[in-house]
Amino acid sequence: MKQKLSIVKIGGNIIEHPAALTKFLALFSKLEGHKILVHGGGKKANHVLKKMGLEPNMVNGRRITDADTLEVAIMVYGGLVNKTIVSKLQASKTNAIGISGADGNTIRANKRPVKEIDYGFVGDVTAVDIKMIGNLLKATLVPVFCALTHDGHGQLLNTNADTIAAELSGGMSRYYDTILYYCFEKNGVLEDINDENSIIPIIDSRKYPGLLNSGVIVDGMLPKIQNSFHALERGATEVRIGNLDLFKKESKNYTTIVL
Amino acid sequence: MKQKLSIVKIGGNIIEHPAALTKFLALFSKLEGHKILVHGGGKKANHVLKKMGLEPNMVNGRRITDADTLEVAIMVYGGLVNKTIVSKLQASKTNAIGISGADGNTIRANKRPVKEIDYGFVGDVTAVDIKMIGNLLKATLVPVFCALTHDGHGQLLNTNADTIAAELSGGMSRYYDTILYYCFEKNGVLEDINDENSIIPIIDSRKYPGLLNSGVIVDGMLPKIQNSFHALERGATEVRIGNLDLFKKESKNYTTIVL
Repeated sequence: MKQKLSIVKIGGNIIEHPAALTKFLALFSKLEGHKILVHGGGKKANHVLKKMGLEPNMVNGRRITDADTLEVAIMVYGGLVNKTIVSKLQASKTNAIGISGADGNTIRANKRPVKEIDYGFVGDVTAVDIKMIGNLLKATLVPVFCALTHDGHGQLLNTNADTIAAELSGGMSRYYDTILYYCFEKNGVLEDINDENSIIPIIDSRKYPGLLNSGVIVDGMLPKIQNSFHALERGATEVRIGNLDLFKKESKNYTTIVL
Repeated sequence: MKQKLSIVKIGGNIIEHPAALTKFLALFSKLEGHKILVHGGGKKANHVLKKMGLEPNMVNGRRITDADTLEVAIMVYGGLVNKTIVSKLQASKTNAIGISGADGNTIRANKRPVKEIDYGFVGDVTAVDIKMIGNLLKATLVPVFCALTHDGHGQLLNTNADTIAAELSGGMSRYYDTILYYCFEKNGVLEDINDENSIIPIIDSRKYPGLLNSGVIVDGMLPKIQNSFHALERGATEVRIGNLDLFKKESKNYTTIVL
């Protein structure tokens, strides 16, 4: 029987609020079995960009990553946010190790080709070294991935944290019974974005096209659910999308996504 | 028989100059056997501090690390410099993993007590987890340590990279035949600071007091040699101090320190 593995991606709103982050990390620490955390940097990167006299450049919710912006992403995602989370997890006796996709050659990516939009130094994942990540888990470590990958030729690349979590889940499910958690500020996938009680309990591949056509799944939720199905198709057991209480057995405040 | 382990600390001048860094990393990649790299951040941290409207504060060559400065140190040492080195090593097929002392709980430290000077968030090393670092080496990884440690209670601390290299060497020498390399811009410990040919080939504990009394060992060289003897007393085989050619068998441009 495969061992259990929880892969948890936390949203920017949790990272930005110290109280929410502390609460989340306490819950994450208590999660039993093997686990992996994935994070981006959220608005902290914009804050540092502005302090350094640079202007954040977003198109359709995606960051355009020029050379200066990449440097800030490396500093904020790979440095400040990653090491802060690791030191806090260590204080909860969780033996975290904070890494990027370059570390241990764990996540390789290609620079996104320029089409209508030049996203700059943004990477699309091409390979996950599941054996190396397995080595870290066997050494009783809890990998904490930031939203950075590399191309294997010396170039670091900015990669969406939701996508990294899905790629890790898809890959690791070969050897582990893997559940992917998307943890953010909402109670789940909502029928009505303004009603936190309108949680859709389960989405499967039959229900999905209807939700798509009726416009329930839009904006940032669309790539999240596409990522979820991608992970499930590659073997992940299930995906849960919800708030900080996502791990609690008694919680009903999340959406489960299955094939 | 113990396996060989090379622990290499590179100075700020190498990090700051892309050509020197590229040359160094190519040489480091070719180094056979287990190896660990240790780096600080040098002037890059000052550059980012100034860009963010903060003023570097140095006393006797040591950085005073207030809360804002610590954030920048975490961004630059743990993020930008660490991940840049790791991605470049990956391009040379060296499977580097960039970490701080918080990652894997590898290096614990205590915040330095306030005496005449309040150094701020600066850590004095109290413990090195040699078993965990050994696990990384056994997984064929090359750890790249930045100059950050943690106190185990959620606080990251700025720690001198020379000291980290010496503490790692002292600890790891229990299981490995360990050589510590201090690699910087000079040809070694010089009799005359202005004459790069005045290399002192060997310093041992009998020769050391004389060099100290005659004023040959001063400034930044003093803690480096104190760190060297500390590592040797704990079991490191030898320490070499010199320039980029330090690893070359035919090079004479370095100082060897033995007990």
